[in-house]
Amino acid sequence: MNKNRAEAFSDGVFAVAATVLVFAILVPDVEEGKLTGALLDEWPSYAAYAISFLTIVVIWVNHHVVFDSMDRIDRPLLFLNAFLLLTVAVIPFPTALLAHYLQAGRDQQTAAFAYGVGMSAMAVAFSCFTLYARRFRRTYVPLDWVGFSFGLFLYPLATVLALASFRLSLVIYAAITVFYVVLPIVRERLARSSD
Amino acid sequence: MNKNRAEAFSDGVFAVAATVLVFAILVPDVEEGKLTGALLDEWPSYAAYAISFLTIVVIWVNHHVVFDSMDRIDRPLLFLNAFLLLTVAVIPFPTALLAHYLQAGRDQQTAAFAYGVGMSAMAVAFSCFTLYARRFRRTYVPLDWVGFSFGLFLYPLATVLALASFRLSLVIYAAITVFYVVLPIVRERLARSSD
Amino acid sequence: MNKNRAEAFSDGVFAVAATVLVFAILVPDVEEGKLTGALLDEWPSYAAYAISFLTIVVIWVNHHVVFDSMDRIDRPLLFLNAFLLLTVAVIPFPTALLAHYLQAGRDQQTAAFAYGVGMSAMAVAFSCFTLYARRFRRTYVPLDWVGFSFGLFLYPLATVLALASFRLSLVIYAAITVFYVVLPIVRERLARSSD
Amino acid sequence: MNKNRAEAFSDGVFAVAATVLVFAILVPDVEEGKLTGALLDEWPSYAAYAISFLTIVVIWVNHHVVFDSMDRIDRPLLFLNAFLLLTVAVIPFPTALLAHYLQAGRDQQTAAFAYGVGMSAMAVAFSCFTLYARRFRRTYVPLDWVGFSFGLFLYPLATVLALASFRLSLVIYAAITVFYVVLPIVRERLARSSD
Repeated sequence: MNKNRAEAFSDGVFAVAATVLVFAILVPDVEEGKLTGALLDEWPSYAAYAISFLTIVVIWVNHHVVFDSMDRIDRPLLFLNAFLLLTVAVIPFPTALLAHYLQAGRDQQTAAFAYGVGMSAMAVAFSCFTLYARRFRRTYVPLDWVGFSFGLFLYPLATVLALASFRLSLVIYAAITVFYVVLPIVRERLARSSD
Repeated sequence: MNKNRAEAFSDGVFAVAATVLVFAILVPDVEEGKLTGALLDEWPSYAAYAISFLTIVVIWVNHHVVFDSMDRIDRPLLFLNAFLLLTVAVIPFPTALLAHYLQAGRDQQTAAFAYGVGMSAMAVAFSCFTLYARRFRRTYVPLDWVGFSFGLFLYPLATVLALASFRLSLVIYAAITVFYVVLPIVRERLARSSD
Repeated sequence: MNKNRAEAFSDGVFAVAATVLVFAILVPDVEEGKLTGALLDEWPSYAAYAISFLTIVVIWVNHHVVFDSMDRIDRPLLFLNAFLLLTVAVIPFPTALLAHYLQAGRDQQTAAFAYGVGMSAMAVAFSCFTLYARRFRRTYVPLDWVGFSFGLFLYPLATVLALASFRLSLVIYAAITVFYVVLPIVRERLARSSD
Repeated sequence: MNKNRAEAFSDGVFAVAATVLVFAILVPDVEEGKLTGALLDEWPSYAAYAISFLTIVVIWVNHHVVFDSMDRIDRPLLFLNAFLLLTVAVIPFPTALLAHYLQAGRDQQTAAFAYGVGMSAMAVAFSCFTLYARRFRRTYVPLDWVGFSFGLFLYPLATVLALASFRLSLVIYAAITVFYVVLPIVRERLARSSD
């Protein structure tokens, strides 16, 4: 199995999943003069879109780092990858669900819980993929425990917390994404300054 | 005709078709307090999404194996490939149809039959593509009769069975996908242990 | 401007446009026992999907042949290419329109006319692109007048005929696609037999 | 981080975003004999589709020029790129919004303002991306002040003007796109004639 084509297919799924997230933002059909208010009331859609988009980009970047570290792949890895992509491609659904119920102002806990289930599934799938992929690495790299554990434990935690406070869980979902954007930048800077 | 660009276009269709499957899962619009129940009732959508997604991945992997075995392609192959992609790209429709009528609890036989027609069409298109492609192989490879016949005969069988029991046909659709995921892993393992 | 990246972007648009055509096929929401009839009544959707899908594949193949013949590209070509892609990406709209009104059994002439306008626009855009691209060819190739003129004149003709008989125009739309699938296969066969 | 894979992912997002713009054009569901009128009344949808499509192509071309000028990338650039893609992928929403309210004949100012906000966000994201990318250029290239400032100042200007006259702002949105299509063609021609 050719590594490059598996990467190309994965890139396609990541790119399409990220782009169709926009359909979680619906065009409001309101009466004359009420569009401004309706667009402002849609802020949960914009937030859900942005968090999901950046989360998919973060997973895509890390997916790429894992692929780059391998010199070959096998069939089980190919299907662990497929399972990961399945969890990525489904994200537009919990995103649209969360946007809809935050705007509707009802059942926000359930919607935030469902969103967390989707994110947790992706974190689990990514962890399985990454751990299995370690056998094909070109050189020994110690497992990045900080980065690795963060999402794997925080997503399920935030999911359970959603039942008590959906606001708190949404803050954690957003914080996880910000953390994964900032962590490698900080590390890159530290590595450069220590040279 | 360049093999690589035909592969890139095919990868694009496979990736988009797999990713837009998610639109078979609809955001339920229910009253306060009924979202949890509504989301649980949507299990047929999740199952249909997962089966179709993995089936497209399986076809994509095998498509890649066939392309890899050829040293060139010609115009008839290009259009057999187009016919295969046409059957792949249509899968979101029978998937959404199956999800809708399983949830609605009516006409499940017809929906399962229609889903089977879509899958059978893909199996037939893939078989035509594979058989024709054999003339461009770099080295002689015996036809994989087990893998080859499995889908070609089981999909139409499950389609007809749907009229008697849609549950049985759904189990067979899922089993075919699992079979194609597991078969190459088992073979790879056997090949390695015999080295 | 790099030729390869322009090709990759174009391939992406062709692949996505072809794959989202499936949304022209709607899941019918009918009462118990009426699904079989409803699915059979949807034949115009299947036909419109198939014709549009194969037409996009034909344009994609020819687009590739033109790109392959050039050794470099310039900005005007890039925007003629963009104009072509704009006409390709819009095809899901006239396809869904045609499917809807053929099924509804009203205003079929107008729908078939609109479909023809879309196809004619694509044929014009492809002709502009091809003619301009000739200045970057590596070697002299005589213009393929048969293939070239066929779509450029038949699409507008079928579009106008739609106002008299939408059935006739649909037959011509389908025939043009079949012609472009068969023509190069015949030519390839003739070329090989004359070697 | 590999430059090529970041480009491939970006190309995917650009291509998908441009192609799903077509869903801003809705199939009108009208009574017998009223389809022709309904299709003509949809001109704002066609215009919005064309302007957004060409704008995405323009950004894609310039994105490519920036990527080509760099010999490597780092993590901050990767996330500035992600932010740019986030603003590109959202464009189908303001496009559909603009099309809907221009056709509805109400709240056009608000819709044109929202469209301008989307375009301005993209211009700002592109500027941040371009300015940061300058540190990785292979050779010194003076900043293209004309091209650079044009969108960055005209988009916000047209956005504010939308509140006074949506027609004027729409003309400016279209003019910016035309400007970016024509500018490099003129420059290429000047460069060639001065050789």
